[in-house]
Amino acid sequence: MSLERHLKAKKAIPIWRKEDRADHIYRVAAEVMCRKGYEATSMNDIAEAVGLTKAGIYHYIRGKEQLLFEIMNFAMDMVDEDVIGPAREIPDAEERLRTIIGRHVKRILEVGGAVTILLEEMAALTPAHQRTVRNRKRTYFELVRQTLEQLATEGKLRDVNPTVAAFSLFGMILWISRWYRRDGELTPQEILRDFQEIALRAVLRTEARSTERAVTTLRK
Amino acid sequence: MSLERHLKAKKAIPIWRKEDRADHIYRVAAEVMCRKGYEATSMNDIAEAVGLTKAGIYHYIRGKEQLLFEIMNFAMDMVDEDVIGPAREIPDAEERLRTIIGRHVKRILEVGGAVTILLEEMAALTPAHQRTVRNRKRTYFELVRQTLEQLATEGKLRDVNPTVAAFSLFGMILWISRWYRRDGELTPQEILRDFQEIALRAVLRTEARSTERAVTTLRK
Repeated sequence: MSLERHLKAKKAIPIWRKEDRADHIYRVAAEVMCRKGYEATSMNDIAEAVGLTKAGIYHYIRGKEQLLFEIMNFAMDMVDEDVIGPAREIPDAEERLRTIIGRHVKRILEVGGAVTILLEEMAALTPAHQRTVRNRKRTYFELVRQTLEQLATEGKLRDVNPTVAAFSLFGMILWISRWYRRDGELTPQEILRDFQEIALRAVLRTEARSTERAVTTLRK
Repeated sequence: MSLERHLKAKKAIPIWRKEDRADHIYRVAAEVMCRKGYEATSMNDIAEAVGLTKAGIYHYIRGKEQLLFEIMNFAMDMVDEDVIGPAREIPDAEERLRTIIGRHVKRILEVGGAVTILLEEMAALTPAHQRTVRNRKRTYFELVRQTLEQLATEGKLRDVNPTVAAFSLFGMILWISRWYRRDGELTPQEILRDFQEIALRAVLRTEARSTERAVTTLRK
């Protein structure tokens, strides 16, 4: 994907470079905000971290609340493109759940946890921005919950409430953003494999089949 | 426990009432801070929420950072007393894990999520306070990880890394603080039952036995 982007950038530098730059600002700003805390972070801190003057950063971003909102949308755009979109094309509920978990975890491991952690900073948003982000989160939650309900209908879900199961899965997935360290002992591949095993076993009734398929999917 | 406290309060009103008052301030302050965001909350907001004058609140609390630190210690004190202490007395690893999950979840459902959510506000603490809280969290994490390692030795853990499993459990448990609503459709008992099922199945290999025991434990 970064290659694809690179090629696009070559074709139309002005537009694509700007977009790349914005993505870079989002990621770095998210890291600064997570380290220092959102309120304690100034636009100066962010400008410094991304190597722009204060005037330069205001070329991309109107202000700190706007930046936070854009980071959250950036995070949800990734979820839309890399998780929700592909998942919606899978009719089989078990396969869809596996895809959702695997793709979301991969994304967190690749991009780093900061943008995910910032999704919790709802109190800092304007009411209108809060509504937008809340709706986007709800759409995702409903996809997972409905997938679990479909599994319940098929007799594949454990004897648990699909809402409790959905929240449990979200808790496990989103928490990775808080503990995963790139320089840690475990490789992303090891974490992804073990995590899929844990998450699927947590909610799926059909033991043998799940594992077998999970392993197959992950080796792809 | 509230009765016990009440009785103690009768025996020695001045000391115990003050402590009760402090606990109340911690809980209410945590709720205000979660709703408004830590930085955006003023000591005035907190005084107003707990029904004290600004002078009154400074009788209990030196300042906002100190208050945050005390809320975190209040949260970890509850974990120490209600989860870690009882768990350490259980030699059987499976039973210990079940106790840890059940007791921690119960505590979150009873007390409300705010104090748990505030445990993430590490960036707002002074470096010395950060170290204290980080050490307390680490002690708890190690208890869970070692319990999972013991289960692995006994052949009861799924084929996953105990650290990944421990973090997954923490993610599920701590996330409850963010989604549980007292006025929601699900009762605390339903959530606790389903959650135990999900969390134990996520990590334990011995299927039939786990469920049977889990159900027994929960009915106590």
